[in-house]
Amino acid sequence: MKQPVTVLGLGAMGAALARAFLDAGHPTTIWNRTPGRAPELDQLGAVRADSVGQAVAASPLVVVCLLVDATVHQALDGVDVRGRTIVNLTNGTPEQARATAERFAGARYLDGGIMAVPEMIGGPAAFIFYSGPEAAFEEHRDALSALARPAYVGADPGLAALYDIALLSAMYGMFGGAEHALALITSERIPASAFTADFLLPWLTAMLGSLPQIADTLDNGAAPGAAGSNLAMQAAAYDNLIDAALAQGVDPMLLRPMGDLMKRAVAEGHGDEDSAVTVRLLSSAS
Amino acid sequence: MKQPVTVLGLGAMGAALARAFLDAGHPTTIWNRTPGRAPELDQLGAVRADSVGQAVAASPLVVVCLLVDATVHQALDGVDVRGRTIVNLTNGTPEQARATAERFAGARYLDGGIMAVPEMIGGPAAFIFYSGPEAAFEEHRDALSALARPAYVGADPGLAALYDIALLSAMYGMFGGAEHALALITSERIPASAFTADFLLPWLTAMLGSLPQIADTLDNGAAPGAAGSNLAMQAAAYDNLIDAALAQGVDPMLLRPMGDLMKRAVAEGHGDEDSAVTVRLLSSAS
Repeated sequence: MKQPVTVLGLGAMGAALARAFLDAGHPTTIWNRTPGRAPELDQLGAVRADSVGQAVAASPLVVVCLLVDATVHQALDGVDVRGRTIVNLTNGTPEQARATAERFAGARYLDGGIMAVPEMIGGPAAFIFYSGPEAAFEEHRDALSALARPAYVGADPGLAALYDIALLSAMYGMFGGAEHALALITSERIPASAFTADFLLPWLTAMLGSLPQIADTLDNGAAPGAAGSNLAMQAAAYDNLIDAALAQGVDPMLLRPMGDLMKRAVAEGHGDEDSAVTVRLLSSAS
Repeated sequence: MKQPVTVLGLGAMGAALARAFLDAGHPTTIWNRTPGRAPELDQLGAVRADSVGQAVAASPLVVVCLLVDATVHQALDGVDVRGRTIVNLTNGTPEQARATAERFAGARYLDGGIMAVPEMIGGPAAFIFYSGPEAAFEEHRDALSALARPAYVGADPGLAALYDIALLSAMYGMFGGAEHALALITSERIPASAFTADFLLPWLTAMLGSLPQIADTLDNGAAPGAAGSNLAMQAAAYDNLIDAALAQGVDPMLLRPMGDLMKRAVAEGHGDEDSAVTVRLLSSAS
């Protein structure tokens, strides 16, 4: 028999997690503050607990997916979690994850970051970052693999949220650039789909190939003469991007900070370096 | 014999263009305001013109790659360009391209946007946007193919610069997101290269798959129930990204405008729509 699991929280994501456990054959206990949520799980064999204490007592592995970490603290207030492994997949920051780990010091606490929308859970493209005690992760790796490909990133419970937030931040940067590009293109009534398929996707895919060099510079310092297009040249040419947007009636709000950052790098004497220096400026600036 | 060509301007990019023509067997005349630039071209058989007028007279196809469009106007002041096809590959904006096309109304004028650094010219990954009279482009397509894969995008001479600037803008957005992510990751002394290879590149490659849906919404309106993760949810969760950056000592300057834009979209009643609405807000905002 497969390991019994408990899922606390049956919003869209929690329900998808419970369903993935049920599909994989795990005896699954479910609980939600508002009763009767996700009724389709009853047909799949889920056991609905009357109280959160009963739900936690039912399984050694308790997966929590609530609104925010404050909701997690409230829901589990006064509940005996000793001997349980709590896997908190609620969205949050590294700081919140570290505080929640403290709060559940009586249990084994893993924090997680889900890199998927609910429809992707149980499918091949989804993955989940985990951090916390490695032994607890290894013990439950098989069960957690029913949800999505697991990626363990370290003992500090804040790391899963850090990786999660780093990837989401990168995604929003990419979307912002693409949305600005689409605003420019549609300002001339050019079809967005053809531009995206023919040029935007191949171009961004090719440009992703520059990122390993930036990462290598961060890890190992600059290779001699490596910067093919240095920051001073890039910063000077950047004004064309702002001017062209304004002339096309497109607000350059998403582009301006990168221009400011590159100009600051040049003003501080880094004009002959590559983009890795902007990473360092971001890190030391706040 | 292959078609004779002329290249005006022998900076890093102009010299790479001349070299690609020579490598493909085109009789190539070169000119630069400062004499003696790019001496390696002489060994490859380039003919160095004494004056810009002589250089223009030498070939029906004249490729111009100078510092900015104002330099192009100066360099060709008083030169007879009638009967020539001028291909201006100097960096610039759509407005500048349209003004330069007016200035050279006596010639056939094509404007171009080079999507490559000099080292990529003549190689398989480079391409160049062209706009202007299609007949002029078709007549010289073979010769221009020696430089990079040509992509003709329309009769309005400003379009090549528009496509060029749209792709560069998208690239800087993507780089900005990636640089912010690397600042977060390196704030915990995690190696940047492993994070980039294992997570950042696969994630961004997967997320590129969202762009065709945004483009389709722009072209055809929203599909019913299409928004898997609507703007209201995204805007609410975005604060975590800002808070986490501040807590890690990373300046969120590159991320803030996207949060402001999504919040404005929600405040204006678009909370249940997808990201396509942010493209429309950018277009109508300035």
